[in-house]
Amino acid sequence: MTQPIYVLNGPNLNLLGTREPEIYGADTLDDIKARMEAASPSRPIEFRQTNSEGELVDWVQEASSATDILILNAGAYTHTSVALHDALRSCDARIIEVHISNPAAREAFRHTNYVSPCAAATIAGFGPQGYLMALEAALQMKD
Amino acid sequence: MTQPIYVLNGPNLNLLGTREPEIYGADTLDDIKARMEAASPSRPIEFRQTNSEGELVDWVQEASSATDILILNAGAYTHTSVALHDALRSCDARIIEVHISNPAAREAFRHTNYVSPCAAATIAGFGPQGYLMALEAALQMKD
Amino acid sequence: MTQPIYVLNGPNLNLLGTREPEIYGADTLDDIKARMEAASPSRPIEFRQTNSEGELVDWVQEASSATDILILNAGAYTHTSVALHDALRSCDARIIEVHISNPAAREAFRHTNYVSPCAAATIAGFGPQGYLMALEAALQMKD
Amino acid sequence: MTQPIYVLNGPNLNLLGTREPEIYGADTLDDIKARMEAASPSRPIEFRQTNSEGELVDWVQEASSATDILILNAGAYTHTSVALHDALRSCDARIIEVHISNPAAREAFRHTNYVSPCAAATIAGFGPQGYLMALEAALQMKD
Amino acid sequence: MTQPIYVLNGPNLNLLGTREPEIYGADTLDDIKARMEAASPSRPIEFRQTNSEGELVDWVQEASSATDILILNAGAYTHTSVALHDALRSCDARIIEVHISNPAAREAFRHTNYVSPCAAATIAGFGPQGYLMALEAALQMKD
Amino acid sequence: MTQPIYVLNGPNLNLLGTREPEIYGADTLDDIKARMEAASPSRPIEFRQTNSEGELVDWVQEASSATDILILNAGAYTHTSVALHDALRSCDARIIEVHISNPAAREAFRHTNYVSPCAAATIAGFGPQGYLMALEAALQMKD
Amino acid sequence: MTQPIYVLNGPNLNLLGTREPEIYGADTLDDIKARMEAASPSRPIEFRQTNSEGELVDWVQEASSATDILILNAGAYTHTSVALHDALRSCDARIIEVHISNPAAREAFRHTNYVSPCAAATIAGFGPQGYLMALEAALQMKD
Amino acid sequence: MTQPIYVLNGPNLNLLGTREPEIYGADTLDDIKARMEAASPSRPIEFRQTNSEGELVDWVQEASSATDILILNAGAYTHTSVALHDALRSCDARIIEVHISNPAAREAFRHTNYVSPCAAATIAGFGPQGYLMALEAALQMKD
Amino acid sequence: MTQPIYVLNGPNLNLLGTREPEIYGADTLDDIKARMEAASPSRPIEFRQTNSEGELVDWVQEASSATDILILNAGAYTHTSVALHDALRSCDARIIEVHISNPAAREAFRHTNYVSPCAAATIAGFGPQGYLMALEAALQMKD
Amino acid sequence: MTQPIYVLNGPNLNLLGTREPEIYGADTLDDIKARMEAASPSRPIEFRQTNSEGELVDWVQEASSATDILILNAGAYTHTSVALHDALRSCDARIIEVHISNPAAREAFRHTNYVSPCAAATIAGFGPQGYLMALEAALQMKD
Amino acid sequence: MTQPIYVLNGPNLNLLGTREPEIYGADTLDDIKARMEAASPSRPIEFRQTNSEGELVDWVQEASSATDILILNAGAYTHTSVALHDALRSCDARIIEVHISNPAAREAFRHTNYVSPCAAATIAGFGPQGYLMALEAALQMKD
Amino acid sequence: MTQPIYVLNGPNLNLLGTREPEIYGADTLDDIKARMEAASPSRPIEFRQTNSEGELVDWVQEASSATDILILNAGAYTHTSVALHDALRSCDARIIEVHISNPAAREAFRHTNYVSPCAAATIAGFGPQGYLMALEAALQMKD
Repeated sequence: MTQPIYVLNGPNLNLLGTREPEIYGADTLDDIKARMEAASPSRPIEFRQTNSEGELVDWVQEASSATDILILNAGAYTHTSVALHDALRSCDARIIEVHISNPAAREAFRHTNYVSPCAAATIAGFGPQGYLMALEAALQMKD
Repeated sequence: MTQPIYVLNGPNLNLLGTREPEIYGADTLDDIKARMEAASPSRPIEFRQTNSEGELVDWVQEASSATDILILNAGAYTHTSVALHDALRSCDARIIEVHISNPAAREAFRHTNYVSPCAAATIAGFGPQGYLMALEAALQMKD
Repeated sequence: MTQPIYVLNGPNLNLLGTREPEIYGADTLDDIKARMEAASPSRPIEFRQTNSEGELVDWVQEASSATDILILNAGAYTHTSVALHDALRSCDARIIEVHISNPAAREAFRHTNYVSPCAAATIAGFGPQGYLMALEAALQMKD
Repeated sequence: MTQPIYVLNGPNLNLLGTREPEIYGADTLDDIKARMEAASPSRPIEFRQTNSEGELVDWVQEASSATDILILNAGAYTHTSVALHDALRSCDARIIEVHISNPAAREAFRHTNYVSPCAAATIAGFGPQGYLMALEAALQMKD
Repeated sequence: MTQPIYVLNGPNLNLLGTREPEIYGADTLDDIKARMEAASPSRPIEFRQTNSEGELVDWVQEASSATDILILNAGAYTHTSVALHDALRSCDARIIEVHISNPAAREAFRHTNYVSPCAAATIAGFGPQGYLMALEAALQMKD
Repeated sequence: MTQPIYVLNGPNLNLLGTREPEIYGADTLDDIKARMEAASPSRPIEFRQTNSEGELVDWVQEASSATDILILNAGAYTHTSVALHDALRSCDARIIEVHISNPAAREAFRHTNYVSPCAAATIAGFGPQGYLMALEAALQMKD
Repeated sequence: MTQPIYVLNGPNLNLLGTREPEIYGADTLDDIKARMEAASPSRPIEFRQTNSEGELVDWVQEASSATDILILNAGAYTHTSVALHDALRSCDARIIEVHISNPAAREAFRHTNYVSPCAAATIAGFGPQGYLMALEAALQMKD
Repeated sequence: MTQPIYVLNGPNLNLLGTREPEIYGADTLDDIKARMEAASPSRPIEFRQTNSEGELVDWVQEASSATDILILNAGAYTHTSVALHDALRSCDARIIEVHISNPAAREAFRHTNYVSPCAAATIAGFGPQGYLMALEAALQMKD
Repeated sequence: MTQPIYVLNGPNLNLLGTREPEIYGADTLDDIKARMEAASPSRPIEFRQTNSEGELVDWVQEASSATDILILNAGAYTHTSVALHDALRSCDARIIEVHISNPAAREAFRHTNYVSPCAAATIAGFGPQGYLMALEAALQMKD
Repeated sequence: MTQPIYVLNGPNLNLLGTREPEIYGADTLDDIKARMEAASPSRPIEFRQTNSEGELVDWVQEASSATDILILNAGAYTHTSVALHDALRSCDARIIEVHISNPAAREAFRHTNYVSPCAAATIAGFGPQGYLMALEAALQMKD
Repeated sequence: MTQPIYVLNGPNLNLLGTREPEIYGADTLDDIKARMEAASPSRPIEFRQTNSEGELVDWVQEASSATDILILNAGAYTHTSVALHDALRSCDARIIEVHISNPAAREAFRHTNYVSPCAAATIAGFGPQGYLMALEAALQMKD
Repeated sequence: MTQPIYVLNGPNLNLLGTREPEIYGADTLDDIKARMEAASPSRPIEFRQTNSEGELVDWVQEASSATDILILNAGAYTHTSVALHDALRSCDARIIEVHISNPAAREAFRHTNYVSPCAAATIAGFGPQGYLMALEAALQMKD
């Protein structure tokens, strides 16, 4: 049976497309989900967003047994969550980290990163396109 | 139609009035809510408390479209939550930060503050009275 | 009436026994719960786990009025949660901190500890056995 | 005999209303003094400004025996003056700290604060209105 | 006339494919160049490598007038070169940063990054494939 | 032949029971030794105390060949002694760290810990009872 | 009417020429003033020195409306005075910072500098000649 | 002609004897001056206090030519004044630093000390008696 | 024989006049060279620019035996090059440091300065005019 | 019965008088002991020196029951010994800290001080005379 | 065929013997080369010096395939070059680090060392003799 | 009369040859002593080891008058002992520091070094051979 590809989004990403579109673009998370589904005809996309650190940890644990590919944009929890770090360390899926903008070019408190040490690879600054790049790269590696 | 004024409270503030009343006073959050409603006859008060960082982020997002005034006592998340910081940065309401006591006079880990950079103004150390001061100032600015 | 003993577990501890058993042992949280119940015939064990910081704060608040003994393994929230710290400071129960492994021998970001300053005592590195040691010590102190 | 309420202002606050009015508003210190006097019919306002750290220390010492309420906007000395800190620690009056803007949202060197640990309460970011809020709160506490 | 796409590589990348292939893969820089040329039929690839910080600065200056797309893997100079940072800040081309492995998961001295603040986007950890992802994304944006 | 269990105590622990008994309890080191001997009928207890860093290093070296269980309360040398750290790293015995009170709740200079990285497990804050807990746990592990 | 050029000197500069002349030269402040007057026939020189931080702030405020050129050697207040920083930020005159010796080559506490971020330009290490260089450059820019 | 001995006191020392006498003793500065005069029959005591950093710098400069012995309790300026540091470095008198209490046992911001590096010797924690000890030691060295 | 005056320029200064002329002015390095030659009729100007740290070190070594005056704008190597620092320390020429803008008013990583401790004097923020000021001051000192 | 006054000296103080006499004076520890005995006719002086941290801890413990006055020059252990700190905290005698020279004017690693927080008073920089000043002050306080 | 022994020297070492001979000795690099050749009759010495970081990286890469022994005095690049660090990590030769003087006794910025973690051994402070010691030790290990 | 050469060893070096021989080699301290005696026919070797900081200080003091050559491997006291630092500063012998392995490649707490600033030279990472290299170099310098 075909495993879905997990795409998990952290806090405030539900605002995407509705706030500062000149910076972040006009794509909403739904748009991104649709584009990913179109780009992955053979495998379903399990696409979710939450503002809760605990729920994000729950989902990463779930992904560990449900998929071999986890695309993760953890938003602000990237910079503060050791709990997420621990969940990712125990996760068997290949983890690809995505960021809409480039955290390295922002405030100092965004330079702490608890996701990258657990991720195989990172894509940052490509806007919504970064999700599709992650998907394509993951499919090439895995399929 | 009249928008409500949002008053959001973070972790452990539900204990107000029941713990160390000699320091924090005997007022409970319900007492504060009642006093704020009495002081705001023309606009309802949307008054909530949560111990969950994610729920606080949800509510700040909701407040952005539902009100023009957000009075926020984020409790300990003031000092640790970049997710809250991001939600506040995207919030269109005027944000007034309230603290029961004065964080600047407490432990060093309370000197990091992710709320103040997003808030128009701050009131700290006036106890429960601080909520009413925030309300009154907000009404003067906005009405 | 006999109060239960609270045993609260933080993020990722639900994975215990299923991941890296050569390090953490093969005991699951259910096994630990069963062994604690066997070791405490006279008092029930209120045993829970959550990945949510907010829910952990809720439970600590609940424990304050429901028990005189709180055994807490806060997992990663040990190192990041000021909200948990504040809840523990307001908690009337005697708090005993447990860790499966020894955080002092791990990464630097695990050396920040918001639980220990509120705990009467700490047990770390004994694996699942640490829970039983905490229980036994608590019963000797309290019964 | 009625004690005056002391309102002490530190360096550069004499420029208020004349510089960057779009940020700080058009009120001068004289305007603020007049509004405070109007709001305090029963007690005189002892309202002063100085650019000198030593004079500010002199006045805080004087206030200790001359009043029970000290409203203080120490300007830049908030962030550098241990001498002011020591004077405030020895001062018997109730001290309320006021800032026109919100120092927590400005440069890192404004995050050091030698006034807050000695103040009962703080109001920041309300512009000149903050003085009146401080006065009203002080009168409610004291009268 | 068609501008070439610049692909600049910093110190030690000439060793790629010859050292620790189990980590970095067996692709050499020549292989990567060939794959990029195959993937960009309409535009030539100006592909270079140097161990010299000064030469890398020379080339970035040259790229500013010769191309609209600069793909840059600055290697260790990413972490130490303010000169490179200044050249990139003056460069009119769109800059995409590539890293073979993920610097965020390595030593602390690799967490300082003088390239990212000047780059539009970053790809890290995909191995040689990252160059092709950068190329494809750049062509989609620009063509 | 039965190996003794080593119990080594560092500086100032000889004052136990004679200073601030309301905090540290009335038990002296002799009392603790007697209780440990009672609790370990099958194996002798080699129980010592010293104020000398060098002597503590000597004893740890001796323990390496003389026992399989070392219970160590290194007192203040926990926080300053790299020499002790090196001796413990070379020691073949299973090391259990004990502290009367909880160093994590005390001054910042007690947060540096050169013993924990070498210890299998740590017990802190249980007062003299911690020695017996360590003994019992060690016997269960080893016998 | 011709505006004077302000030349303000901070603490201990009144000792110039009388202490360690082998290092600082034999010129006194009076000598410097005389040489500046000779070099500025068309505009008077308003030349002052004070050891008081508050008085220096007073003078900078005065200079803002009285001149378009402020040459400032703030001495030690360069390194400690946020009050001076705020006054300079509000000052409309073009500010040129002068130092007799080179602070960058001295103690670490002289590397904090609250004047430079407000100054158009800096001259350091030329001894008393630096004042004349500043004057000449200022006249060329302004006249 | 006999030079006076300079005894200079910094901010808030004029409060001595009137605040927290159980800590600082009941002696006022006048009492201390009288006791020093009694202990120095052959040389007058030039005894002063100021809350102003600038005035303290003025007096240290004056002392350099007026005396060979300067006893200095700079109070809070000890910890913040580089201007005072520079004046002391240029001062020819033998400088003896006095503190009523022991700054090393107080807050971290009192551990920065700009006076000690310029002083020949320091006396701290002896209360008002420290002034007499400084005087006696100075007379023995100098007479 | 007349020695030339060395004027050495570091990385990215070859872009002067072509990038952001509203900030840095329209003068190119060639313009500056021409103006310096006009201002120094009696001594030739040895004027060079390089992006290479090693070449800059070579030239400083050469200058040590070829001239008595070295005017140096090391650009970004000012902040990172210990090699340059060592070459300057061994250089017999009088070194005058020039910067187009004022590094003290820019990013924190520009506050580290390896040139100033070796330079006799510094001129910053005067734009291209700073080179001529340095030349004039050098000629006055040396001729 | 008359208690002796304890005078304890730490590492390298046995070299006093034999090394760098132009700095430390020609007095040996024996000379100091003799002068202290002459100055204390009514009470014996228990005068010792050791290079061992552990022995110094032993002696401080002994002093706690044997005397009411402890004059301590802990030498380098002042800056590194938490064990000494703990012994002093448990010591009932009044502790007076003495240093031959002024640690505040020396290397940064001598600015950490574990003795001062436990000492009633400190004398530094008076050379051997400091011991006699400490003795005299102690006798005045105690007799 | 006999491989040469590589001896690579970094910036400013070409000045050896010509600057401060009382500190560094009168030996030039040529003298050192000659003495090494005399001491290594059976294997040629490949002896080079460069001021360029990039060239040093080139040579380390070359050495990796050309020799089994690399003696390296990287001069200032020891303290700043991550590029050199990466080249050394990839180098198969046995690396012996040499310094003329002892960096540990010099400025703080020389305490960062990117060479030592990649070197088998280090010799510092023996002057030019250190090269011969390194050679002799290398020959003993390898021949 | 011929002075012996002092070779002093600090904590845990008595374990040499018995622990992790694959890293540290199979040579014991006795083997090293024998090899040094063989290599120094004309001068005796005073070879000692201690785990005690105080004893090491004693021996360094003794060496100061007994020898002109001190070879010192201070082990862990290298990184923590200011007392040893002070003894070495007073020691007249030429001091050569030896380490079996390379501390610069180990944990951060081994990067603090109190011996190197007092040593003429350092040899690290050559294993037991380092002692012989130190001896040979010392004899060449001194004989």
